[in-house]
Amino acid sequence: MSAKKSRPTAPRIEETSMSDLWNMWYSELHEQKIGLTQKVNRVLESYDSPFQRIEIFDTAHLGKTLVLYGSLMVAEGDENAYNEMLAHPALFAHPNPKDVLIVGGGDCGCLTNVLKHPEVEQCVMCEIDKEVVEVSKRHFPKLTAGVKDKRAKLVFADGKKYLEETNRKFDVILLDLSDPIGPAVELFQKSFHQLVFDRLKDDGIMVAQSESPFYHRETVRNMYSHLREIFPIVEMYLAHMIIYPSSLWSFAYCSKEYHPHRNFDQPRYNKLAPGMANSYYNDEIHRGSFALPQYVKELIGKS
Amino acid sequence: MSAKKSRPTAPRIEETSMSDLWNMWYSELHEQKIGLTQKVNRVLESYDSPFQRIEIFDTAHLGKTLVLYGSLMVAEGDENAYNEMLAHPALFAHPNPKDVLIVGGGDCGCLTNVLKHPEVEQCVMCEIDKEVVEVSKRHFPKLTAGVKDKRAKLVFADGKKYLEETNRKFDVILLDLSDPIGPAVELFQKSFHQLVFDRLKDDGIMVAQSESPFYHRETVRNMYSHLREIFPIVEMYLAHMIIYPSSLWSFAYCSKEYHPHRNFDQPRYNKLAPGMANSYYNDEIHRGSFALPQYVKELIGKS
Repeated sequence: MSAKKSRPTAPRIEETSMSDLWNMWYSELHEQKIGLTQKVNRVLESYDSPFQRIEIFDTAHLGKTLVLYGSLMVAEGDENAYNEMLAHPALFAHPNPKDVLIVGGGDCGCLTNVLKHPEVEQCVMCEIDKEVVEVSKRHFPKLTAGVKDKRAKLVFADGKKYLEETNRKFDVILLDLSDPIGPAVELFQKSFHQLVFDRLKDDGIMVAQSESPFYHRETVRNMYSHLREIFPIVEMYLAHMIIYPSSLWSFAYCSKEYHPHRNFDQPRYNKLAPGMANSYYNDEIHRGSFALPQYVKELIGKS
Repeated sequence: MSAKKSRPTAPRIEETSMSDLWNMWYSELHEQKIGLTQKVNRVLESYDSPFQRIEIFDTAHLGKTLVLYGSLMVAEGDENAYNEMLAHPALFAHPNPKDVLIVGGGDCGCLTNVLKHPEVEQCVMCEIDKEVVEVSKRHFPKLTAGVKDKRAKLVFADGKKYLEETNRKFDVILLDLSDPIGPAVELFQKSFHQLVFDRLKDDGIMVAQSESPFYHRETVRNMYSHLREIFPIVEMYLAHMIIYPSSLWSFAYCSKEYHPHRNFDQPRYNKLAPGMANSYYNDEIHRGSFALPQYVKELIGKS
């Protein structure tokens, strides 16, 4: 009690001299051997949801970051590459993407990008962990702007269960999942991708984040192999995502009918892209991101 | 003395138990805030040349790495992205690249890739630090294979002096320089690029590594701005180079006459690429690597 009372009069350590004492680093390692390390100015949140550990770090170079289950998900300074690249290629390739489903995507960055497309009538986001949405709303207002859009419908449920139980069919389904080590393990398996295929309309498109072709070679090889058994069109595209392992991130474009570049010359495509205020995605990137380094082509057996 | 004598009979610590004790990490940091960190199994070499500190680390994930002046230059496991992407775009864009000059490039990876092109009659490599070539020959035999080619001519001299004093003109000049903090500072300036322009034939091409457009924004902006004052054609292209800061690396394609994609349909281009046994470069990448993320386009003022 007396200690509590005396506190206000005790000399306060200034922020400037504190920075001489404080030296905290957060590293996300691949196989405990290599990874990105970042200086952390401050731990803003660190708690457990019913599904995973959730952390917000204020980092020295990239600003606020969201860490789920030990993996970096989002950073203020990451140029939004991942979210834009997950949403736009499918939404521009589809001639009329009215009904969109996102599985996962709790940080709402994908949702916000989907809703940049005026053709979208409803975007359902099925996220298992409501806390990820809540923590993101507190710390990433730009990223979560889409939540307020009346076309957004948030469902807090297991993605697999949702797809098994719904009668709806979608034009576009986007799999915005965390790595296949946490709650998302099952959602990287063939049976789940088959379920997605079945919930797509006859000309539907699925895009799934598909890990790093540099580090996660076995996962990538297996995933593309079974996706080809389900979808008639399967193409990989890449983005430079500074905070993800190796910074080289891949996406699986899986389609029943539309080739990713089929409508390049349509006015909708050319008209919308500049007005979207994207940091990463543009029409050149839409084309260029499907060019794969030779070792990646060989990894997924593309001639 | 007695301690020395007793050593041979003392129990030797096994490699396996040593790995429990040993925990060495090498991090290359951007502004002391963020960077790649790697577990080091063993320091194989660490010494000073007349120009810089040279180190060879055996790393846990990427194998042997060459570190110059504290910067990671080469790793066995880096898929050779940097060297292939420095050499091939210019050599395929030029219709008849007979005389090639590399400034820097001591690890010889660029040289070896240049010499994959049968049109090349001579490739001069002007490297200031002979020790970089020597250490690379000891540890990276695949990378340095080109040194034995009789078309390779190694000159150990200051690149600027060499260009000032030579009478030769080249078809292609490649600037394979370390970061503009060590011995290479002057070689990132406009006066040096003007000198390169003057030593190119009337249809010559220069390619310069141009740092990370994610981290080194000021350097990149300034460099492209002054390159455009010298060359009629200036285009940026990108590669994913796992070991370089941010893993997103840029190259400045600067040309007097030939557009980088002008001869895509020529038989030479299509015939050679597959037989080159490249890990990274291929014809798709040649095209796709010129697609720039929106924030990079804006950085270099490209509409």
